[in-house]
Amino acid sequence: MTYDHYFRSAIDRLHTENRYRVFCDLERLAGRFPHALHHADGAAREVVMWCSNDYLGMGQHPVVVSALMETAERMGAGAGGTRNIAGNNHPLVMLEAELADLHGKEAGLAFTSGFVSNEAAISTIAKLLPDCLILSDELNHASMIAGTRHSGCEKVIFRHNDLDHLEELLKAAGRDRAKLIAFESVYSMDGDVSPIGAICDLAERHNAMTYLDEVHAVGMYGARGGGIAERDGVMSRVDVIEGTLAKAFGVIGGYVTGKRDVIDAIRSYAPGFIFTTALPPAIAAAAQASVRHLKTSDIERKAQQDRVAATKAALVARRLPLMANDTHIVPLLVGDPAKAKAATDRLLDKHRIYVQPINYPTVPRGTERLRITPTPFHDDALVDALVDALEEVWTALELPRTKDRAAA
Amino acid sequence: MTYDHYFRSAIDRLHTENRYRVFCDLERLAGRFPHALHHADGAAREVVMWCSNDYLGMGQHPVVVSALMETAERMGAGAGGTRNIAGNNHPLVMLEAELADLHGKEAGLAFTSGFVSNEAAISTIAKLLPDCLILSDELNHASMIAGTRHSGCEKVIFRHNDLDHLEELLKAAGRDRAKLIAFESVYSMDGDVSPIGAICDLAERHNAMTYLDEVHAVGMYGARGGGIAERDGVMSRVDVIEGTLAKAFGVIGGYVTGKRDVIDAIRSYAPGFIFTTALPPAIAAAAQASVRHLKTSDIERKAQQDRVAATKAALVARRLPLMANDTHIVPLLVGDPAKAKAATDRLLDKHRIYVQPINYPTVPRGTERLRITPTPFHDDALVDALVDALEEVWTALELPRTKDRAAA
Ligand SMILES: Cc1ncc(COP(=O)(O)O)c(C=O)c1O
Ligand SMILES: Cc1ncc(COP(=O)(O)O)c(C=O)c1O
Repeated sequence: MTYDHYFRSAIDRLHTENRYRVFCDLERLAGRFPHALHHADGAAREVVMWCSNDYLGMGQHPVVVSALMETAERMGAGAGGTRNIAGNNHPLVMLEAELADLHGKEAGLAFTSGFVSNEAAISTIAKLLPDCLILSDELNHASMIAGTRHSGCEKVIFRHNDLDHLEELLKAAGRDRAKLIAFESVYSMDGDVSPIGAICDLAERHNAMTYLDEVHAVGMYGARGGGIAERDGVMSRVDVIEGTLAKAFGVIGGYVTGKRDVIDAIRSYAPGFIFTTALPPAIAAAAQASVRHLKTSDIERKAQQDRVAATKAALVARRLPLMANDTHIVPLLVGDPAKAKAATDRLLDKHRIYVQPINYPTVPRGTERLRITPTPFHDDALVDALVDALEEVWTALELPRTKDRAAA
Repeated sequence: MTYDHYFRSAIDRLHTENRYRVFCDLERLAGRFPHALHHADGAAREVVMWCSNDYLGMGQHPVVVSALMETAERMGAGAGGTRNIAGNNHPLVMLEAELADLHGKEAGLAFTSGFVSNEAAISTIAKLLPDCLILSDELNHASMIAGTRHSGCEKVIFRHNDLDHLEELLKAAGRDRAKLIAFESVYSMDGDVSPIGAICDLAERHNAMTYLDEVHAVGMYGARGGGIAERDGVMSRVDVIEGTLAKAFGVIGGYVTGKRDVIDAIRSYAPGFIFTTALPPAIAAAAQASVRHLKTSDIERKAQQDRVAATKAALVARRLPLMANDTHIVPLLVGDPAKAKAATDRLLDKHRIYVQPINYPTVPRGTERLRITPTPFHDDALVDALVDALEEVWTALELPRTKDRAAA
């Protein structure tokens, strides 16, 4: 074929803009998290991971790993079919009940990923509502944008967490038009939180439906890990709550929960749900074990919050440019893609610390950053080693510091 | 919210059309496949599965299950991040090399599912080609249709496996326009096979790129399980070969293979690849073990072909309306959605045989069918029990028979 140059030049563009991504080849070690092996140039070196979204370390929790192993031994590897054709396995049915209960909803539905759950659920809900207008927070995740696009419906973007702007748009649409407000609870790159209750007030006042992505909050907030909506006591006011099984729950898969008919309609109409092999029973069992465990165990959440506080305090003490927020996300501003890459390369090569640079399009240009995620397993010694390493890197590369300690 | 009636009426429509799907709650038993437990009304009964897409039974193969268990024990459950951020695990890197080798391509890329691989790869390839025209077989799978739609590119549909029609459309588009031909090898509901070599001839003659879905062929055809393209000796002529890890390989996940730059461009630009958690290391290791095993072992393929032949012969002998083809798919025509459902309900309740009815929109109205998939584990006794049960059901429900034996 004579198409090669198109793909070559698409890749060249990324190199030119310092946005070409090189994946770090990692080997996690169960029981030793956050330590991992880094494979490069035919050798493997031990590194400390500081950017995993296995926020609570549940991926190595004995309850989770043994549920996975036991179920694989008993039921085999794959599901062997779609949900409709031979693939609807018992652990998956039980997982969905567990998730509905987690969010206090009538029904739950599991997908192969959180990405697919957003894409499939948002596009299907919006398609089933006549002339639906989607109101989407400007910082919504790529998967919600995909769902919005694929619905084929009209959409308007409201300024991030801006209630006045959202209300203006709701009013302009009018009471009688079908409206779906799509937003997140914890925005994962800045770590800020949306005013869920106030958005529900607006939805009720203007007769809109609400769709909330709690991907970066489930397992970590609320008395039973139901997320920010549970913490804020507003779970029952949100129409559809979406989450992932791949971050705090430590496994893989995504889901939505809501009223029985809404969930049944998604189940019955979404191509991304219908025409794909179901999650393996062993994965469903591991995820259910994790969700169930975190409903009653608070140790992981408490320990994570403690480690987050310790990490943030240590960064502030060194005048490293922490981007302040009230959650478990610890963003450190660099402000330049090449420097962000250089900083993380140096952390890895010289200090054996693995943090990934976050560049455009994941964050706006000029706000390139390191995104640090402390877990219960990052003890004081690891925190000290991290800030010492950052200190060295920030000095060597002459990266910007916080001017005024109080500002952080 | 006051939106409930929209979802309710969407579901009612399905009931009215006899298309509402009730999932069968199944518990597979490793080592005892195709036997499984069917959960209903609080009890579990043993049934024999005759419609699994775990075509070779690899989902329970000791090589696969033990790779899954050992890796979970060593590396934990989830990947803990996206491919770019902390989730790029070593078994996944090795799996991709194994897949590239399977299809004789420079590079491979794994996705969370075959659905996602088609959606992400087709849409990204087409977007990166200026003014691309997608030429799509009319029977292409929902995931390929999703990729085509989401590319935003113009598409034309060619009549199923119709080379003349395809050539006409290629000519009309002109040599200079970018053109992507998207098609499958084994079409899973009829079991017919596309003329891959002849399509590549047309692509070369008219300067088009080719994209082939081998989801229902990988593991089962070709000396090393590379699919129909390997069997036909034309693998190197196809630009991109896509497959799943969830059917003959018995695990979960999807992939594409092709030239390095094409694959790197998909890796770098596809939102459905970038913004989602990577496959767990244990899943990648299990899939790799399965692919590697089937590269050298022919026992499973031979046994499956033998069982398929035995099943087809037994059906023909009873004048049950087999829809003839040359592959491992065994479709049995019913021609009516309510009757297809009644037949499978009776098979399950009275004979403890689980086959799912295949109704619109998966197949055209009027061609509703049972889709039977014999595996190496369906021995003569199970084949006999199947045809006896079908005989009883066909007589009881007065379903159509083949008029003339020779016609089947
Ligand atoms: C806000 C948000 N929603 C959804 C997803 C997708 O979840 P998953 O990784 O399970 O596909 C992510 C990240 O991956 C995310 O950050
Ligand atoms: C032709 C075809 N392509 C792709 C897929 C999707 O593969 P997966 O089940 O891995 O998502 C399927 C079925 O599920 C299929 O039949």
